[in-house]
Amino acid sequence: NGRSLTFKDADGDFSFTVGGRLQADAVYHNEDDIKLGDGSRFRRAFLDIRGTVYRDWNYRFQYDFARPGGSDNSQRGIRDAYVQYTGFTPDITVGQFKQPFGLEHLTSSLNTTFNERALTNVFNPDRAIGLGLSHGGSNWSLSGGAFGEKAEVDPADEGNEGWGLVARGTFNPIIEKDRLVHLGAAVLHRNPEEGDLRFRERPEANVTGVRFIDTGTIGNVDDYQQYGLEAATVLGPFSLQSEYINTRVQRGSGDKNLNFNAWYVYASYFLTGESRGYNAKSGAFGAVRPNSTVGQGGIGAWEAGIRYSRADLNDGSFIGGDQDNLTLGVNWYATDNIRFSANYIKVLDVDRPGNAADGEKPSIFALRGQIHF
Amino acid sequence: NGRSLTFKDADGDFSFTVGGRLQADAVYHNEDDIKLGDGSRFRRAFLDIRGTVYRDWNYRFQYDFARPGGSDNSQRGIRDAYVQYTGFTPDITVGQFKQPFGLEHLTSSLNTTFNERALTNVFNPDRAIGLGLSHGGSNWSLSGGAFGEKAEVDPADEGNEGWGLVARGTFNPIIEKDRLVHLGAAVLHRNPEEGDLRFRERPEANVTGVRFIDTGTIGNVDDYQQYGLEAATVLGPFSLQSEYINTRVQRGSGDKNLNFNAWYVYASYFLTGESRGYNAKSGAFGAVRPNSTVGQGGIGAWEAGIRYSRADLNDGSFIGGDQDNLTLGVNWYATDNIRFSANYIKVLDVDRPGNAADGEKPSIFALRGQIHF
Amino acid sequence: NGRSLTFKDADGDFSFTVGGRLQADAVYHNEDDIKLGDGSRFRRAFLDIRGTVYRDWNYRFQYDFARPGGSDNSQRGIRDAYVQYTGFTPDITVGQFKQPFGLEHLTSSLNTTFNERALTNVFNPDRAIGLGLSHGGSNWSLSGGAFGEKAEVDPADEGNEGWGLVARGTFNPIIEKDRLVHLGAAVLHRNPEEGDLRFRERPEANVTGVRFIDTGTIGNVDDYQQYGLEAATVLGPFSLQSEYINTRVQRGSGDKNLNFNAWYVYASYFLTGESRGYNAKSGAFGAVRPNSTVGQGGIGAWEAGIRYSRADLNDGSFIGGDQDNLTLGVNWYATDNIRFSANYIKVLDVDRPGNAADGEKPSIFALRGQIHF
Repeated sequence: NGRSLTFKDADGDFSFTVGGRLQADAVYHNEDDIKLGDGSRFRRAFLDIRGTVYRDWNYRFQYDFARPGGSDNSQRGIRDAYVQYTGFTPDITVGQFKQPFGLEHLTSSLNTTFNERALTNVFNPDRAIGLGLSHGGSNWSLSGGAFGEKAEVDPADEGNEGWGLVARGTFNPIIEKDRLVHLGAAVLHRNPEEGDLRFRERPEANVTGVRFIDTGTIGNVDDYQQYGLEAATVLGPFSLQSEYINTRVQRGSGDKNLNFNAWYVYASYFLTGESRGYNAKSGAFGAVRPNSTVGQGGIGAWEAGIRYSRADLNDGSFIGGDQDNLTLGVNWYATDNIRFSANYIKVLDVDRPGNAADGEKPSIFALRGQIHF
Repeated sequence: NGRSLTFKDADGDFSFTVGGRLQADAVYHNEDDIKLGDGSRFRRAFLDIRGTVYRDWNYRFQYDFARPGGSDNSQRGIRDAYVQYTGFTPDITVGQFKQPFGLEHLTSSLNTTFNERALTNVFNPDRAIGLGLSHGGSNWSLSGGAFGEKAEVDPADEGNEGWGLVARGTFNPIIEKDRLVHLGAAVLHRNPEEGDLRFRERPEANVTGVRFIDTGTIGNVDDYQQYGLEAATVLGPFSLQSEYINTRVQRGSGDKNLNFNAWYVYASYFLTGESRGYNAKSGAFGAVRPNSTVGQGGIGAWEAGIRYSRADLNDGSFIGGDQDNLTLGVNWYATDNIRFSANYIKVLDVDRPGNAADGEKPSIFALRGQIHF
Repeated sequence: NGRSLTFKDADGDFSFTVGGRLQADAVYHNEDDIKLGDGSRFRRAFLDIRGTVYRDWNYRFQYDFARPGGSDNSQRGIRDAYVQYTGFTPDITVGQFKQPFGLEHLTSSLNTTFNERALTNVFNPDRAIGLGLSHGGSNWSLSGGAFGEKAEVDPADEGNEGWGLVARGTFNPIIEKDRLVHLGAAVLHRNPEEGDLRFRERPEANVTGVRFIDTGTIGNVDDYQQYGLEAATVLGPFSLQSEYINTRVQRGSGDKNLNFNAWYVYASYFLTGESRGYNAKSGAFGAVRPNSTVGQGGIGAWEAGIRYSRADLNDGSFIGGDQDNLTLGVNWYATDNIRFSANYIKVLDVDRPGNAADGEKPSIFALRGQIHF
């Protein structure tokens, strides 16, 4: 395709692709009381090798060179790393890959409308090593799996890993060129390692290490359940998308159960007339193809978006924090593989009594340059 | 070859290959007293770039993304990284590569019969930076070299690196299609860095960080010598293989010399009729080519194996531990580059008086999925 | 070109290259009082992916697998990582790349005459994330930019990053085949993060972690300015090159300003008649093309060099150390992409009263094997 390096044999039974992606961020904070730290860094720097052998076997290996690889968690850089067999129905995947939960979560970081995913991301499960089954048609998808944990070397900790089950279905009552309705639902059950659980999230910006909301380690956890609801529509250049995630934490005797939730809604509009891409078989949004290209006489694609998101980690006397954000974003797709984005994030409020984060209302200005190949 | 990406010019004087390998492990332990920690991780995730320039110059660079890259040992991920000149006899290799010692050690991790090498691996030398000479014919090989240490950045430690000499020879009295006898011997002499030496080994399983046998740091070491003996045979689908390694540690005045040894013997059988591959020029086993391929109407190759191995790090009053293991293994070669393995490892005994590991007899169930390209 | 893997479409509007470089070092020290630690390591191990899309957009991603990736600085391995647009004059570059300052600094590590850059390197700015403009003709170049810091994840440190401005110009009064005069000048202004600044440098050898000169952390810094002057000439096989760098540190009330400087001069001669390569558009030296190739009946290119360099970090009562070195070097370019080098570095003196490094005069013998593809 001129961008990534792909080779196929004549039959298409064998193929091999070397690709990658690079995201460079610069973020400025109009801070309230808590210092957030202006600066720049690489958000992602992926090498991406994938291929097909003997027609029915796919594999993929992604490594993120931008992930801190400290001595405690040295396999953090490994992202997708799996083998998939497509000779049956459903497809079978073994290795590490995204757990099927959450529309924004399952949309590639290359194609999210805003630089960072919404505050709902606090509940999105990590990629994990497991076994998955998936199948889909022209207007539906079903997927599920059993998962251990994300691959991180921890030889010093001899605790047994956590494990969980996840399932997700999507349906498209309307799916035409430039017109789409997406409905989705997912459920997750999980036993965490050694009964310890933690939810925390940065303020939709990633240069800072500060998290305004953070449950700390919740101990004595038997298991927890999540469900997520998804709805989205595309009407030509206009798009609307929303998700809600609920989390229930079941704890052993003496500790009360907890109930958290988060949601977002956003709208986006292409000033240059393009539509968001969508993949029905995976039930997630895909790439934007600009109508014109910068350097070929065009101006690329221009998109504007607005998002409201909220995550509530407070439950009665348990205070993990309740945050809501408003985000304005502009994306410039200079070519089909080069994108520049500017996001303005306003933290509307943090409700976390007794913590320094309580009442913080900073505004954040985030720039991103992105290329994939 | 349809799997890795290889380019050659018309003369074959120049070539370039991008390949890789991925091994994902899940391990469950039926623990005795010591907790071992069930879980999953990537055992290896190699990027492998190799090529030839001007016909006589080969090079190779392998990086293992699954290796912990902590601040203390950040070059651990670099595996083979060398330049080789083949215009002379013998071939000359400069850089980091495997020290020529040990049949199982010199057989690629892609092609070992069991998931992990036998307890003899406690004595196999690491890859190291050095200069090697090698030559071989249709039924023999000779190789040797002078080596510093494995590349690991250690700027804070201003001690001088250790160094050593290694040599190995192999001979094949019989080498026919599907019939083979392999005999080999190797010697090693080494002065360790700052006179400190340590031998330790996991229980033929790698998700756990526990080592039942461990000499701790042996101080006041002048130098140490090793010799290894190798024998193996292939008779159609049947194969038998054994190694013995002896290690003598010479210490300065006031400390007594130490003598350790280890050995294993194993048998394997291909239910589907294949034979193990072998490379006479390097004196090591190679890849298995299944007679049929899953997804092409076949069932792949199926191999069953049994191994007994023992390492004795006790010498008189010096107690590093004496362990023996029995392993049962099944390998399913779905294609010529995709393999799934299940190993059951029974620790028969650990003899290490005065240590918590003494008398431990856990059993371990290990699964591996592997692809290379 | 037979070495790296480059693909182009018919128009040259799209290209993709996978390359790399490997440098293995072994260093022996004839130590004075301070132990330096003999040993071997990989100096650099680059994966290098670059390409062009839609004719006007270039990108590059370089990762150095030899860089320690500790938990404190995990993005250190990312080297060049940028997107460049060449559809305007000047070229616009966004991402991480070398700040345009210093002739030896801007010459690729593949093509420096000696294994390590001169002591002036103490003042060369790091690569950093920023925006750069550059333009050049057949005998001149101009480049400049605004830069934040090098990408290193530091989520725990919520301080704001430093930033700076850099500009450089070069001119060639003579530029013919095998005859060249290069003149250059550069200026830099920078506000360091949190007002802290440090200059320190190894003794032109990199296996050791010892730095004889080191300002320690200079606090209360408002900003600092540097200027550099460059001159070089090539006359057939003979070459002469020199640089001078001055650094002025402006500090807040109560602390006196500081003034440091460094310079070097070196000569090199090709016994086999080659000339050093040069790129006028970037104002830096390039690759050497040997007249003959080892393995093709030739002996490659042989070059001998001598260098004197000095860095003075003393200013009045402020003592960071004043060091001068003499280096003799021999380079053997076996092919156009394989080079072996031997350097003898004599530390002539270290003037750093009150520090253990004062009066140290070790000699260092450094070997390097290098391949790029």
